[in-house]
Amino acid sequence: MQLLKNRILKDGECLEGGILKVDHFINHQLDPSLMKAMCVEFVRLFSSSNINKIVTIEASGIAPAIILGYLLDLPVVFAKKNAPNTIKNAYSTRVHSFTKNKDYEVVISKELLNEEDRILFIDDFLAYGNSAMGIINLIEQANATLVGMGFLIEKGFQKGRERLEKAGVRVESLAIIEDLSNQQIVLKD
Amino acid sequence: MQLLKNRILKDGECLEGGILKVDHFINHQLDPSLMKAMCVEFVRLFSSSNINKIVTIEASGIAPAIILGYLLDLPVVFAKKNAPNTIKNAYSTRVHSFTKNKDYEVVISKELLNEEDRILFIDDFLAYGNSAMGIINLIEQANATLVGMGFLIEKGFQKGRERLEKAGVRVESLAIIEDLSNQQIVLKD
Repeated sequence: MQLLKNRILKDGECLEGGILKVDHFINHQLDPSLMKAMCVEFVRLFSSSNINKIVTIEASGIAPAIILGYLLDLPVVFAKKNAPNTIKNAYSTRVHSFTKNKDYEVVISKELLNEEDRILFIDDFLAYGNSAMGIINLIEQANATLVGMGFLIEKGFQKGRERLEKAGVRVESLAIIEDLSNQQIVLKD
Repeated sequence: MQLLKNRILKDGECLEGGILKVDHFINHQLDPSLMKAMCVEFVRLFSSSNINKIVTIEASGIAPAIILGYLLDLPVVFAKKNAPNTIKNAYSTRVHSFTKNKDYEVVISKELLNEEDRILFIDDFLAYGNSAMGIINLIEQANATLVGMGFLIEKGFQKGRERLEKAGVRVESLAIIEDLSNQQIVLKD
């Protein structure tokens, strides 16, 4: 998606260690116009799929998920990291975060996911695919159907897509980063 | 706001210890139609204010904040709990969470808040006002102006409003809970 690619090249920063910083428009400050344009692209990509629920994971996935939910008039469920004590009965799995170098629990209440659901999962980043694999696990526990996964930005060199596609999942990303070494952002055409 | 009040009475649950569970439409599953209607109400309430930025705090504040940002075409900044290592230079404060019974750090990058900003803060809940007081602190550090604070649900019996109004802040809540004892939800008219 050209609009997002241009924005990444204009406002994205490449930090040491292959970290892409998009704090000014996705991860800390949000640009609602860009967010809407990206979600319209997801509408287009998944328009032929029969979806009844959008799932994401807190915190940075919530903004694109709710804007997409708004456009499609569909409920949005966000998986919670570390179950609050108000959720008694939940599907649960553990996910390893490379960024924070620790494991955390991810849960969705059993009241909010069931075998009739046809899910589109939305998140800001696809890197190694650990969060996404965790979500696949939760959806399987609920016997729900995963229609596809949409990401704003994919780090193509971190192989998350391979894992997800091997699990039979349709993956769509709006911008793919090919390389971040040499502190330079190289995007896939 | 009657639509929200009706929904709280219909789908809200009152758990032991005065906890209001609104997982089905605000805190875990989001209803985009309700979210939009609530944000339209914020537009109405703050329409005479000159706002250039919306601030919220992760995670449950992000959905109403981005929908409001979308309606008003304004950037949204969400304060982060526990600074990620990509944020080097930030306004920072500590907030005590009664729900989780621990302190956490709340930060906003110095690049995203400055003395020309006129801020509307949006969050899902106002209880004791600890998060909100933390945000006031960050806004003061940046010499920015706080135009007002809007909450979806206020727990009127936990006195957050008193603290914020004493600090000179305009507070607007779309529904006020007067009492949660006896496991019953009592709303203010």
